[in-house]
Amino acid sequence: MIQCVACSLKGIMWREILVTALFCLRYGEGGFPYIVPSVGQIWPQPQHITTEQTYMVVRPNSFSFTLNGYDCVTLQDALKRYTDIMFNSSNEYQIKKVDPWTKTQYFSGYLDTVHVNLLKPCEHMPYLGMDEQYSLKIDTPDDPGKGTLISESIWGMLRGLESFSQLLIPDGSAYTINSTQITDYPRFRHRGLLIDSARHYLPKSKLLETVDLLGMNKFNVLHWHIVDDQSFPFVSTQFPNLSGKGAYSQERLYDAQDIADVVEYARNRGVRVVVEFDTPGHTRSWGPGQDGLLTTCYSDGKPDGNYGPIDPTNDDNYDFLTLLFTEITSHFPDHYVHLGGDEVSFDCWESNPTITQYMKDHNITGDYGKLEEVYVSKLLQLISNLPTKNGYIVWQEVFDNGVAIANDTVVHVWKGGWQDEMANVTKAGYETILSSCWYLDHITYGTDWKTYYGCEPFSFNGTQTQNNLLVGGEACIWGEYVDKANLIPRVWPRASAVAEKLWSSMEQTQDVNSAAPRIEEFRCKLLSRGFMVDSLGPSFCPGDNL
Amino acid sequence: MIQCVACSLKGIMWREILVTALFCLRYGEGGFPYIVPSVGQIWPQPQHITTEQTYMVVRPNSFSFTLNGYDCVTLQDALKRYTDIMFNSSNEYQIKKVDPWTKTQYFSGYLDTVHVNLLKPCEHMPYLGMDEQYSLKIDTPDDPGKGTLISESIWGMLRGLESFSQLLIPDGSAYTINSTQITDYPRFRHRGLLIDSARHYLPKSKLLETVDLLGMNKFNVLHWHIVDDQSFPFVSTQFPNLSGKGAYSQERLYDAQDIADVVEYARNRGVRVVVEFDTPGHTRSWGPGQDGLLTTCYSDGKPDGNYGPIDPTNDDNYDFLTLLFTEITSHFPDHYVHLGGDEVSFDCWESNPTITQYMKDHNITGDYGKLEEVYVSKLLQLISNLPTKNGYIVWQEVFDNGVAIANDTVVHVWKGGWQDEMANVTKAGYETILSSCWYLDHITYGTDWKTYYGCEPFSFNGTQTQNNLLVGGEACIWGEYVDKANLIPRVWPRASAVAEKLWSSMEQTQDVNSAAPRIEEFRCKLLSRGFMVDSLGPSFCPGDNL
Repeated sequence: MIQCVACSLKGIMWREILVTALFCLRYGEGGFPYIVPSVGQIWPQPQHITTEQTYMVVRPNSFSFTLNGYDCVTLQDALKRYTDIMFNSSNEYQIKKVDPWTKTQYFSGYLDTVHVNLLKPCEHMPYLGMDEQYSLKIDTPDDPGKGTLISESIWGMLRGLESFSQLLIPDGSAYTINSTQITDYPRFRHRGLLIDSARHYLPKSKLLETVDLLGMNKFNVLHWHIVDDQSFPFVSTQFPNLSGKGAYSQERLYDAQDIADVVEYARNRGVRVVVEFDTPGHTRSWGPGQDGLLTTCYSDGKPDGNYGPIDPTNDDNYDFLTLLFTEITSHFPDHYVHLGGDEVSFDCWESNPTITQYMKDHNITGDYGKLEEVYVSKLLQLISNLPTKNGYIVWQEVFDNGVAIANDTVVHVWKGGWQDEMANVTKAGYETILSSCWYLDHITYGTDWKTYYGCEPFSFNGTQTQNNLLVGGEACIWGEYVDKANLIPRVWPRASAVAEKLWSSMEQTQDVNSAAPRIEEFRCKLLSRGFMVDSLGPSFCPGDNL
Repeated sequence: MIQCVACSLKGIMWREILVTALFCLRYGEGGFPYIVPSVGQIWPQPQHITTEQTYMVVRPNSFSFTLNGYDCVTLQDALKRYTDIMFNSSNEYQIKKVDPWTKTQYFSGYLDTVHVNLLKPCEHMPYLGMDEQYSLKIDTPDDPGKGTLISESIWGMLRGLESFSQLLIPDGSAYTINSTQITDYPRFRHRGLLIDSARHYLPKSKLLETVDLLGMNKFNVLHWHIVDDQSFPFVSTQFPNLSGKGAYSQERLYDAQDIADVVEYARNRGVRVVVEFDTPGHTRSWGPGQDGLLTTCYSDGKPDGNYGPIDPTNDDNYDFLTLLFTEITSHFPDHYVHLGGDEVSFDCWESNPTITQYMKDHNITGDYGKLEEVYVSKLLQLISNLPTKNGYIVWQEVFDNGVAIANDTVVHVWKGGWQDEMANVTKAGYETILSSCWYLDHITYGTDWKTYYGCEPFSFNGTQTQNNLLVGGEACIWGEYVDKANLIPRVWPRASAVAEKLWSSMEQTQDVNSAAPRIEEFRCKLLSRGFMVDSLGPSFCPGDNL
């Protein structure tokens, strides 16, 4: 009996079976001791897709997009970029010595153009809740021999171009594409990746590379945890001492131009950049550049040289924060800023006599949660009062500590026991983002992407109204053990598991086994596009340019 | 009180304190929330080193080595290579705006040459037990203002050049080097890294890069697990079907030239290449190319399409193995071949009626350990009878299963409970290699290099005679989740912890805390040499070319 694991997978289409069969022949009976990637599948899976056995042939030299609807520079750039991606990759999956494509009964002609029909004018900046829907038709019964990509939004167009590029199967000197009909849109509005440029500095080149990969994974948020205890690489023109004294070095900075470059690169790929300036804790690097900002810690009745969280009793600090966040929000145009608020240690506050006196004066003696509330509510207020009228995201502790927060606060859940937390947060009426099960920095041996894939955001106890408050999720790659040397292979394609979970429907992401050959194919595609992404198990990418 | 963790480290020399103090100033009180690398330390630590506050200055344009003793191409190549490494790196640790070096009281002149004195003719190939000792003197009391590197062996010379290169501290446009005296030699004779090119193919470029890093870490063995169940990339001219039908693809092969290139590259760096052809298990990829080699598995009285370990009852197989290993040992000149022998499953043997009959005929019915012994003893015999009279290494199961093995077998211990195993193996009089605690593929979050560093090979219960049978150890990076994309960052510098454990003395490798800033410095040096090696915790490399 022939046992060929890869051949018995459900739901694979004919070309896949053909290709798989070729490999089966080589190995003969006994099955594969390695993963065989699928062929011509899209990651993350489109919401609705039908595929036929018939196929068209795309020849690089005679293919071009045809613009039918609205136009803009972002779209022009995207068409150029995807032409490069499609035809200049290292021909992953090139199947050599196949019969000429025209000779099979399924050949349906040459596809020399795809009509790109943008139905509404381009929006300039991506935003929470932007329209990302698109439709793609290749050689469909109502339009045989033709290709059409339709969207009401530039953002949907970007998603559609990525899907189209993934449908092409290298085949000798050309590409085949099955007759396909897609209607696609994301399951969640907020689909992000947190990066951390404070524990290790990340050069701009690696940020841009990350944004490229976000776009290819249909993520739409780069959550940039830009500063922390270890370093303050953000250059403030108002307060140059912050990076002058708080950065790792004066070569490891992000100035206005760097940030503008990242924001623009991300905008062109439909990716929002949500910056985080985490306070009042995680601010040790802020101290040297701003006198009086951090709480002086005391031992035995005198300052002991250590510093704690931002001093909430010093009114000057709120003036400082107002000016700083005015500058920050002028660089980061997204409506939302992430204000942090996690892991605030009360020890230093407890040791400080000025703070003790303040709490006595305000009748909150001993209640450091209340003291945190003083800080957070003033911070939220000042953010709301900025000319840019920003919204904000905070880590779950702000909610957990009973701080009275504004109704439009988004609560970012990251700790264990997240199902209970999300039930509570949404019951209280707050929007929420899930990260608890997607901490990519917590590496383990083996196929941990399957664990990420198995985390279902709606598996908490809530009503439909509560579910609606779940705006999405973020994979997190905290930077303690991550820098330019390993950022790309450590994040990808493990984050891709989260990407599909957040884009595709709940029903489509139930079966991790059927996802395995597809994520393997996607991994091979990313490799062929030049990204050094990790392997997911014993395998090889056919046609990979070694 | 100033709390500056990095400044309170023991045993750091004056320049380190100077540099550390510079960083302390930037951060002021409160200590560092990140690792501050040491400056000018050698990894792995030399057995004997004394360093003075005085220093000399090395100017790239006026420095060259002077040959005094024996000469050979390997030495010439090494001098050229290390000149490049020293002066063409991206100037990690460049300290800008320091006072001119001549102005301090410790300036001891310019070092324009190092006398390289090889006392015996070069040996051509590295081997187990080769002499790796060297002495390095820079501006010592008996030879002030001079630099001398002395060794009786080309292999010691290579180790000494690496040490010299690590002593240089970039300082503006030149380098400083403290007055230093070193006598150095390895603690263990066999210091290796296992790589696996079967679960994923590893391109030759990555093998060479790995060999470069082995040399810089003073490792002396590349253990090349070249084939396994998943693929057979070794090209045999005698049996071309093995790779023709068993490789992942015909682009993923190692032919005679590839192997010769790797062996030669390694030889030039004092690194032996010990190849492993693992049998009788782990041989699934061998089957399609060699009829009758693998055991046919039976279900319900008939072949079920699966194949098991090599069939030990088929005499033709020993002729095949003799021819194959004759070819293998002609490509891999090291005295030792690794014959595997791990994880032999008896299920398929048990199902096969021909094998059952054979065991009955030989009065070993039911004793599959004995059947394995039949195979292994014939294999060891045929290896011994090769014209090259090779020695062999086997995985511990061969010993554990009670197989009667030759006295000169080296037993490679990889399983848990290794202290008992090593006690038993050495009590039985066999030489042994330790890998159990150095499985680098088993990744975990955090500073697992400290766990590797904490594994003391002599912590088993044995006499001095038994200890002497411990020839060394190997870090292992099995390839299930490792390929070209992540090989370098995943292995390094975690393997460097093992490198120091195997080179430096037991006493020198007791304190993991004092190792931390040193391994961090070494990591920065490797980065500056262009190797994308992982980070070990929040940090930055001063002067790193971003």
